Amino acid sequence: MKLLERLSLNQITTNPWSMEQAVAACEHNGIGYIGVWRHKLEEDPVKAACLIRSAGLRVSSLCRGGWFSAPSDSERRERIADNLRAIEEAATLGAPMLVLVAGPADGQTLDDARKTFMDGVAEMLPVAESAGVALGIEPLHPMYAAERSVVVTLKQANDLAERLSHKSVGVVIDAFHVWWDPEVWREIERARGRILGFHVSDWPVPLPGILMARAMMGTGVIELRRLREAVDAAGYTGPIEVEIFNDEIWKNVGDETIERIKRNFLEFV
Amino acid sequence: MKLLERLSLNQITTNPWSMEQAVAACEHNGIGYIGVWRHKLEEDPVKAACLIRSAGLRVSSLCRGGWFSAPSDSERRERIADNLRAIEEAATLGAPMLVLVAGPADGQTLDDARKTFMDGVAEMLPVAESAGVALGIEPLHPMYAAERSVVVTLKQANDLAERLSHKSVGVVIDAFHVWWDPEVWREIERARGRILGFHVSDWPVPLPGILMARAMMGTGVIELRRLREAVDAAGYTGPIEVEIFNDEIWKNVGDETIERIKRNFLEFV
Repeated sequence: MKLLERLSLNQITTNPWSMEQAVAACEHNGIGYIGVWRHKLEEDPVKAACLIRSAGLRVSSLCRGGWFSAPSDSERRERIADNLRAIEEAATLGAPMLVLVAGPADGQTLDDARKTFMDGVAEMLPVAESAGVALGIEPLHPMYAAERSVVVTLKQANDLAERLSHKSVGVVIDAFHVWWDPEVWREIERARGRILGFHVSDWPVPLPGILMARAMMGTGVIELRRLREAVDAAGYTGPIEVEIFNDEIWKNVGDETIERIKRNFLEFV
Repeated sequence: MKLLERLSLNQITTNPWSMEQAVAACEHNGIGYIGVWRHKLEEDPVKAACLIRSAGLRVSSLCRGGWFSAPSDSERRERIADNLRAIEEAATLGAPMLVLVAGPADGQTLDDARKTFMDGVAEMLPVAESAGVALGIEPLHPMYAAERSVVVTLKQANDLAERLSHKSVGVVIDAFHVWWDPEVWREIERARGRILGFHVSDWPVPLPGILMARAMMGTGVIELRRLREAVDAAGYTGPIEVEIFNDEIWKNVGDETIERIKRNFLEFV
């Protein structure tokens, strides 16, 4: 498959757009995949599935499940229930994978929250398997450890996947989250056979904030091509999602956004 | 040694104060150690040394050396020269250790910058040894990987120290920089015999920014006591620096700041 054919537009990159607008932009610009976010489904995954299918698009992943840790048992049960709904939605969309973000400790210790996350994934695995949806553990950058994810390195995600040892669980590698890690090359190779997704964006200098921190590929310091080639060399041949949280892109989203994504994807990824 | 006797005021915590004011505050409040920053020396380390000595204070460390990577060879030579001056200043102050921050890649690739850092430390070691000043490699949080430090985990600092294998090199453990790391407990134990310093502050939620992000001990999510006990258990019995970059503390710095530091240090560290 040619590189450009692997490009997937993660919906958060063009967040101001509705599902209809994002799908139309992909169709119009020859992008074959879309990475879907749950809030864009507007509680009607079948409608979204029809729209995506009739545009000839494929779904690379559904974002996101996980977030199992909570202060009380009853809240933790609700999180599990919500994740089971997410698996169903992914199956409806034909998404081969649900991205899991661990979530913060949220009232637990870090160790306990990490255990809660593993237990949550383990509990979902039989359902995921019968739905034909893989669960992709995505480590986030350690600057999100307190607020968004207690899973913060690819080594940790690999350790978890290894311990769960199930064909329906794997890892998602996002360049923005892992580029700084001295262990990343070793861990990408170690992830062979369980890489379920690869995300790209860039790390600008200076970093403008914590959440809205990402930049267009080629405008930051991440060695994107080296990472992509390492992920390829570890046997991953699937879609590559462009996932950028960026206020400026959101403010000016339009056809030029997609053109720039394609251009920079080819030049830098 | 009682816990409170290990408390060291890192000058950046009370940054609006001059050297005179910081030393007076330590003397007045029965704090035995001060962590000195180079910009507070105002190019007269002997004056600072006299002031500190006559107040009966000891210097826990001098901040900071390192920052070896630069776009050109001549700039890299200047960085080395500046680091040699820092070693001299540390010796004049009676500081047992110079804290090394790796610095950003600054025109090099991440791999090359990491090598440049190791080579820089190696080059300084004979001078440091003869000056009686140890070099403490401090890994910074990965959110500083692009702008402040290509050394981002305690494992990486331990690997470096192990490879350099010299009695004048060790590691500095700062709770803010390492708390998120699933490997931190193993790496603290592995650092046994080469822990040269321990720094505390806290990680607030939400994080207010990148650089001015730290909070007073006890007001964030870091398991400070657990970390301190782990560092103790790994054989470190030296001073513990309170190092907080915080705008609010800087705006309101006064005697109450020191009282609060002592109180929260005893309660949470």
